[in-house]
Amino acid sequence: MKSALNLATRGLGNVWPNPAVGCVIVKDNTVVGRGWTQPGGRPHAETEALARAGDSAQGATAYVTLEPCAHYGQTPPCAQALIDAGIARVVIALEDPDERVSGNGIKMLKAAGIEVTQNICRQEALEINEGFFLRILKNRPLFTMKMATSLDGRIAVHTGESQWITEAPTRQQGHLLRANHDAIMVGIGTATEDNPQLTCRLPGLENHSPVRIVVDRRMRLPLTSNLVIQAQDIPTWMITLGDQDDIRAEAYREAGIEMITPDDVSEMDGGITLSWVAEELAKRGLTRVLVEGGSHLAAAMLRRRLIDRLSWMHAPRIMGHDGIPATQAFGVDHLEDTPFFDRTDSFSSGGDLVELYRRRDLDIT
Amino acid sequence: MKSALNLATRGLGNVWPNPAVGCVIVKDNTVVGRGWTQPGGRPHAETEALARAGDSAQGATAYVTLEPCAHYGQTPPCAQALIDAGIARVVIALEDPDERVSGNGIKMLKAAGIEVTQNICRQEALEINEGFFLRILKNRPLFTMKMATSLDGRIAVHTGESQWITEAPTRQQGHLLRANHDAIMVGIGTATEDNPQLTCRLPGLENHSPVRIVVDRRMRLPLTSNLVIQAQDIPTWMITLGDQDDIRAEAYREAGIEMITPDDVSEMDGGITLSWVAEELAKRGLTRVLVEGGSHLAAAMLRRRLIDRLSWMHAPRIMGHDGIPATQAFGVDHLEDTPFFDRTDSFSSGGDLVELYRRRDLDIT
Repeated sequence: MKSALNLATRGLGNVWPNPAVGCVIVKDNTVVGRGWTQPGGRPHAETEALARAGDSAQGATAYVTLEPCAHYGQTPPCAQALIDAGIARVVIALEDPDERVSGNGIKMLKAAGIEVTQNICRQEALEINEGFFLRILKNRPLFTMKMATSLDGRIAVHTGESQWITEAPTRQQGHLLRANHDAIMVGIGTATEDNPQLTCRLPGLENHSPVRIVVDRRMRLPLTSNLVIQAQDIPTWMITLGDQDDIRAEAYREAGIEMITPDDVSEMDGGITLSWVAEELAKRGLTRVLVEGGSHLAAAMLRRRLIDRLSWMHAPRIMGHDGIPATQAFGVDHLEDTPFFDRTDSFSSGGDLVELYRRRDLDIT
Repeated sequence: MKSALNLATRGLGNVWPNPAVGCVIVKDNTVVGRGWTQPGGRPHAETEALARAGDSAQGATAYVTLEPCAHYGQTPPCAQALIDAGIARVVIALEDPDERVSGNGIKMLKAAGIEVTQNICRQEALEINEGFFLRILKNRPLFTMKMATSLDGRIAVHTGESQWITEAPTRQQGHLLRANHDAIMVGIGTATEDNPQLTCRLPGLENHSPVRIVVDRRMRLPLTSNLVIQAQDIPTWMITLGDQDDIRAEAYREAGIEMITPDDVSEMDGGITLSWVAEELAKRGLTRVLVEGGSHLAAAMLRRRLIDRLSWMHAPRIMGHDGIPATQAFGVDHLEDTPFFDRTDSFSSGGDLVELYRRRDLDIT
């Protein structure tokens, strides 16, 4: 199952709206097939593994990180494929939360006389597909906030100089994060000041382009920015309150940008409601969104308790109080009300320290 | 030697103005004596170890972390004691920077026919006595800054609520730091707002009281504060520009506080020059000073490049830009000018992360 879990993580960032699943088929103590969800979300992990196993699947055991699907979608159900291949036993880490599957895949397998073992490495499987579970059960994606700061939490000195706070290997970690998220979201301040490309520029992963999202209430993004220019090649979405009929909105649309606006702007109180944003992103299938700043968007997300995971990179420097803060104020009067996290990992990256956190009160079920 | 280095660290914080030294005497592959600098700075490590070894010292090897002293101070020279005890070989990690010793101890030993090996674990020995070296060679103590902040570098939420940002085991680490420093220094803001005791309150270390130092330019420290009230029992120093003849200075002095003022206030430009403070502290014998805040003192020390080591405790919270900063602005316009450190260690303490750093451009020789 550990091996299947490892395979599952390969799909993170490029299988949305589907879950990232891994499957290992074992016969007579030998692995005869391995598979994981393919880019775009299909073929599914089981199909891949069965294809590799061929006739060896007969009488074998399949380890799957998520319950095999039971419904006819764009592919035939995997549960049926396992049955047809003559699999004798299926070990499942986790039930699928999708109501079209939930429990039905297991029922199908059992009805066909297959032995089913459940809840093996359940927690690990849940962590991998936290974003998918949030989309299905809470109608919003998982949000990871990436931060690169000095020890005293500054992203730049007061002049704005921020390149580079962290060392090259740490910045590569940042690009790796991009690769395993479905989308990257920034505020309009960051989009205009840094003119970022928001692409993954790691060797071998250049072609992996998560969706780029800019939150731009008043459509201030320059039409000459990298985000607009590359929108024909890389999916780019703008979340705005601007009128859909506006001539500027039309220009963005012509450049290839998908415009996301509320049906009723009056419900927004003049600002963009982030819970609405979360819903819109989930509706479009996103499961994992990386928030890359700036400090205003970070504060707004934290105020709404929408930051689920942190990837915080601390550089061994001190900048002082005139440095640009990681996050603006978001209205915390008492210590007990500060967003609180559990550290899941930390490691050195050159002279920097990379720390991973998960929100303590995050509830995905 | 590793064992001798461990013994040496036992002295840190309570042997000033002397160095913290460790000594292990080995005969026929058996340790026959161990010693370390005793509280107050004497007896020295060698004397202690020789006393334990007794007659077994004859023909034995002594491992010492610092060159044995060669001058008659308040104790007879250790080099002579080693000779008298019949030690056959002395292994020394590091030469003593004190000009009364430097090389003379080694000469004495060699002259007596003892085999001397030098520079074994030199770097480790240097790190232990960095404070002593700075006092002797640079006329200032080592300054360690202790910080307990959120991930975004805040020591309290905007209302001032800061108890407790970190968990109990992390706060104990803070008390341990107090125990291995000669003195604790705070600014007047922290002294008045928190009314701290600045004592080590770890079980078994309650009686270890480093000197307490408050930087208080205008003598604002309340006479009813813990620092003043306990000054009869715990050494307490005030660094001030206040006139020594002032009636308030007299009240502090009567309470037991040692008043440190410049001979010529006009040289101070209205503020307290921290390089002068460093000199005054070294003059009084301090080798290791722990700076515990607040943010103004921290900024002033950082501006002068006087913070040599950091003990930074990051709690897994985010407070936002209205939180109280770890350090005020200290005038850094370019990234390359930010104080830069090398991480020497980091470890989990409950949910917190404790990180130790050493200033990259610190030069003690």
